[in-house]
Amino acid sequence: MKSYRQELWFKVPTRRGFLNITTQVRACLRDSGIQEGLVLINAMHITASVFINDDESGLHQDYEVWLERLAPHEPVAQYRHNVGEDNADAHLKRQIMGREVVVAVTGGRLDFGPWEQIFYGEFDGRRRKRVLVKIIGE
Amino acid sequence: MKSYRQELWFKVPTRRGFLNITTQVRACLRDSGIQEGLVLINAMHITASVFINDDESGLHQDYEVWLERLAPHEPVAQYRHNVGEDNADAHLKRQIMGREVVVAVTGGRLDFGPWEQIFYGEFDGRRRKRVLVKIIGE
Amino acid sequence: MKSYRQELWFKVPTRRGFLNITTQVRACLRDSGIQEGLVLINAMHITASVFINDDESGLHQDYEVWLERLAPHEPVAQYRHNVGEDNADAHLKRQIMGREVVVAVTGGRLDFGPWEQIFYGEFDGRRRKRVLVKIIGE
Repeated sequence: MKSYRQELWFKVPTRRGFLNITTQVRACLRDSGIQEGLVLINAMHITASVFINDDESGLHQDYEVWLERLAPHEPVAQYRHNVGEDNADAHLKRQIMGREVVVAVTGGRLDFGPWEQIFYGEFDGRRRKRVLVKIIGE
Repeated sequence: MKSYRQELWFKVPTRRGFLNITTQVRACLRDSGIQEGLVLINAMHITASVFINDDESGLHQDYEVWLERLAPHEPVAQYRHNVGEDNADAHLKRQIMGREVVVAVTGGRLDFGPWEQIFYGEFDGRRRKRVLVKIIGE
Repeated sequence: MKSYRQELWFKVPTRRGFLNITTQVRACLRDSGIQEGLVLINAMHITASVFINDDESGLHQDYEVWLERLAPHEPVAQYRHNVGEDNADAHLKRQIMGREVVVAVTGGRLDFGPWEQIFYGEFDGRRRKRVLVKIIGE
């Protein structure tokens, strides 16, 4: 069994945003030389997500509006976590969008359906944060 | 390390529905001959889910009502993704129910609690769509 | 490839609650002797979650309030699942918080960001329930 590990660093300049990280994950997979196995991609921070969906800007705006409706940032005082912090909503939004994805590796490639793309979802940005890519297989 | 890959195809005749796919996943596991490892089961489409819960029709009706409350289909014009499309809500519902599950394989079996069953959750049906089953282990 | 399996048992005395199980998962990893691989930690019950977030009591109260808003327990008769049961809301809450996490194992350790902690989320407690820890690797 082979294993591979890489950290990807991102700084989203706004509080919230979505970054397509598929190209970086593909580069990791090539580096690893692994042909058959699983790749785990997870946010290393608890106010961010990694998820798979469509690379379509209208949809990303829909996610932004929807997540703000389900777990609004304001008023910050509505959350008990926000004592000296203002990011409780980010911990909630991340639960809806998820911490991680696991993707099959087949023939040295991400084994994806036609529209699957991997995103980093930032809910408390404006600082450098990390995603972990771990690949195991042969 | 052994690996195994199979696609399962489904066509749900309605826009939304839940299919119990546990039997098909068990058949894949038998085919694979893998005794110890992990199985990944994921929707290959971004408007569908794979999740684990109870095979109880009342609960599935509760999921339908609940998801429509959290991410309603109508009015379709409320979503920016719906330019020439009407499935934005399906991309939202799928995030709540999840893209994938990872299940332990122990002694050649799905290592499940008493009521765990695997479901395909369709949120934009009426066409053929796929689930990927990838198993790694020994 | 090595594999390891352990069940962790919990009894939360209230209907809902969150338990930090990171120490128990670390003990499993030490027992396994696995240095590189993946660990799957999943609820074996369909009214409970395993998730990763912050060990901060204010945040846990925020989760409690938020989940009750998104999927309220009362009135129990609003759910079709609740025929002779009263835990439909628990099946909904568990979908938001998730069934499982997959964590990378690197150098014999959980490969975590600075604040990541693993929690058991109980939504229908007052009885003994299980979490599965499965580790594969070398």
